[in-house]
Amino acid sequence: MIYLDNAATTRPDEEALARAQRFASENYFNPSASYGGGFAVSARLKEARENLLSYIADPAKFELVFTSGGTESDNQAIFSAARRGNAVTTAGEHAAVERAFAELKNRGVETRFAPVDRYGAVDADALLSLVDEKTSLVSVIHVNNETGALNDIAAIARRVKAKNPRCVFMSDGVQSFGKILVRLTQEIDLYAFSAHKIGALKGTGALVKRKNFSLAPLIHGGGQEGNLRSGTENVLGILDFAYAAEKKFSSLSEDGKRLKRYREMLWDMLDHGLFMRISPSEGSPYILTVSAEGARGEVLSRMLWERGIAVGTGSACSSKRRFSRVLTACGYGEKTLDGVLRVSFSPETAEEEICFAANEMNAAAKEFKEKL
Amino acid sequence: MIYLDNAATTRPDEEALARAQRFASENYFNPSASYGGGFAVSARLKEARENLLSYIADPAKFELVFTSGGTESDNQAIFSAARRGNAVTTAGEHAAVERAFAELKNRGVETRFAPVDRYGAVDADALLSLVDEKTSLVSVIHVNNETGALNDIAAIARRVKAKNPRCVFMSDGVQSFGKILVRLTQEIDLYAFSAHKIGALKGTGALVKRKNFSLAPLIHGGGQEGNLRSGTENVLGILDFAYAAEKKFSSLSEDGKRLKRYREMLWDMLDHGLFMRISPSEGSPYILTVSAEGARGEVLSRMLWERGIAVGTGSACSSKRRFSRVLTACGYGEKTLDGVLRVSFSPETAEEEICFAANEMNAAAKEFKEKL
Repeated sequence: MIYLDNAATTRPDEEALARAQRFASENYFNPSASYGGGFAVSARLKEARENLLSYIADPAKFELVFTSGGTESDNQAIFSAARRGNAVTTAGEHAAVERAFAELKNRGVETRFAPVDRYGAVDADALLSLVDEKTSLVSVIHVNNETGALNDIAAIARRVKAKNPRCVFMSDGVQSFGKILVRLTQEIDLYAFSAHKIGALKGTGALVKRKNFSLAPLIHGGGQEGNLRSGTENVLGILDFAYAAEKKFSSLSEDGKRLKRYREMLWDMLDHGLFMRISPSEGSPYILTVSAEGARGEVLSRMLWERGIAVGTGSACSSKRRFSRVLTACGYGEKTLDGVLRVSFSPETAEEEICFAANEMNAAAKEFKEKL
Repeated sequence: MIYLDNAATTRPDEEALARAQRFASENYFNPSASYGGGFAVSARLKEARENLLSYIADPAKFELVFTSGGTESDNQAIFSAARRGNAVTTAGEHAAVERAFAELKNRGVETRFAPVDRYGAVDADALLSLVDEKTSLVSVIHVNNETGALNDIAAIARRVKAKNPRCVFMSDGVQSFGKILVRLTQEIDLYAFSAHKIGALKGTGALVKRKNFSLAPLIHGGGQEGNLRSGTENVLGILDFAYAAEKKFSSLSEDGKRLKRYREMLWDMLDHGLFMRISPSEGSPYILTVSAEGARGEVLSRMLWERGIAVGTGSACSSKRRFSRVLTACGYGEKTLDGVLRVSFSPETAEEEICFAANEMNAAAKEFKEKL
């Protein structure tokens, strides 16, 4: 099985999981318990929190809250920050942000969407023009999950804060954390990401907040996570997250360089008479999105599965609608939208897998068209 | 290590976890993926959902939504149901309900608390008297997590609906699911519970809803769980939950009978000059809460940990305040509240562990008092 759908989810790293499990199976105590066993778990969670935070931010200036995943992190950030006036985002957001914005509208907050270019990157000037003195929140995805397009969140956040210093700036970092270099600047108030996109388990995520930033809980109860996220901590998931991240960050630059080479190699090997490219060359090295115009991505994906290759058809999370909302916003027509395949890599991806996948993608697209 | 803090969390069942892991490590695909691997995971989740539901409700009349835990389930139920008028609950609720009610108050919903008896069971008549035509929600914990007291939720729900048929009735079933026989009746709209209290992992829970009951999502995004709980499904946690439940439900009645005997045996062996009993005899077989009046429960718990025994001091989730809110509502004075120990069992608890624990509890309480 050649697994090239790593933007949807990743194969759990066995070493990280075994390491987390060694601790968690013996130290199964509730971290809130008032005896030695509870203290030991609580101390290990603190270590995991500090390590994860240190990869992307100055621990003197930011804090990390564990959540159940990227979607919850996005939701908490949005519902905490946007309580009045208007909220601004891009047409290139993941459903976790886009659907939360739809809910904001129900709650009486005006929502504004900045257009994206053909690669899915936001038009920063257009975004800025939507920000005014009534804007309570601006949310900009860091790496577009459908195309790999990169938004310069540090620069955008700086401009947003210059225009309205009281407005909150957040970013969905689900496709960037553990994949590209991230360093949070002081204008970024909130940054959301997930464990299962970097070789850890589904069901864990994090929301990083600027220190002194007043975040409201989404889930109320026992007061865990400094009262910002109640519920018994997912100890196994959190430790696995930290150990998987440790591995990813130890070779992040080299992995990125190699995968960029693979991405271009894959593109070069694809039949350009059959496939058009959607992903930009300066985007995330982890994603190559193409379209076999006139073919059906969903059908191709199933054909490729039969040939031992897993590739996505766009965002797995919104697989229920025919056309991708984000790629529609990029300006593509129905014929292009219908044929979309998203090939996404991990540091474990091997060169020969790329070659095999390219040949099979060509063969499948050809077969599909010959059948028409 | 004699682990008698199972109401706080349980040791993960190794068999159930290994079984879940066998599937999840090979089938790591995103359940939303549009190829064979995704379909296989999605089918297995459906099976887990159906099995878990079938233990406590008629699948023709109820549905199950997976969440990140009992706290999230309680929060979703409460924030979905109580949007106006008043909301009624008991003084014996877990922090997940009590803190969500505090948030309701911030949102302009009037909150009303019915008193509990000395065991922590709600005064049903008093609760009923708080329900009026403006009541949007009534929430009654099934088994009190600090005392084991049982509320007859079927009878209470019937009376509530007779008085106000439009009002939503929910129950926190975290300490009952997989421990005592539960059969949801048609007057119960929502029932919340958790995986890690029955030998599965922390980070998974469920909210059962009556079919046709209109539940609002707490977390918005990709539309998972029938659009009621977005976010990539915690596949390992969910399968582990189902497999652990399968084991618990296969011997639920026998386990309950045996643990009731152990609970009484423990009480009989405790020095009644040192300990007073808080738990009722007709409550959950899984919990015996006592107080070593004049001693400090927290100190005793640490002394017992040194002797190889883990017991709780009340709700692990609210260990930050000195006195338990719930036991205070039961009417105990400071001397009693200070000395509380909660001993909680699991089906794995052995008879000799009970004897050992009783002797050590007696010795620790005696030692504490002699030092005074």
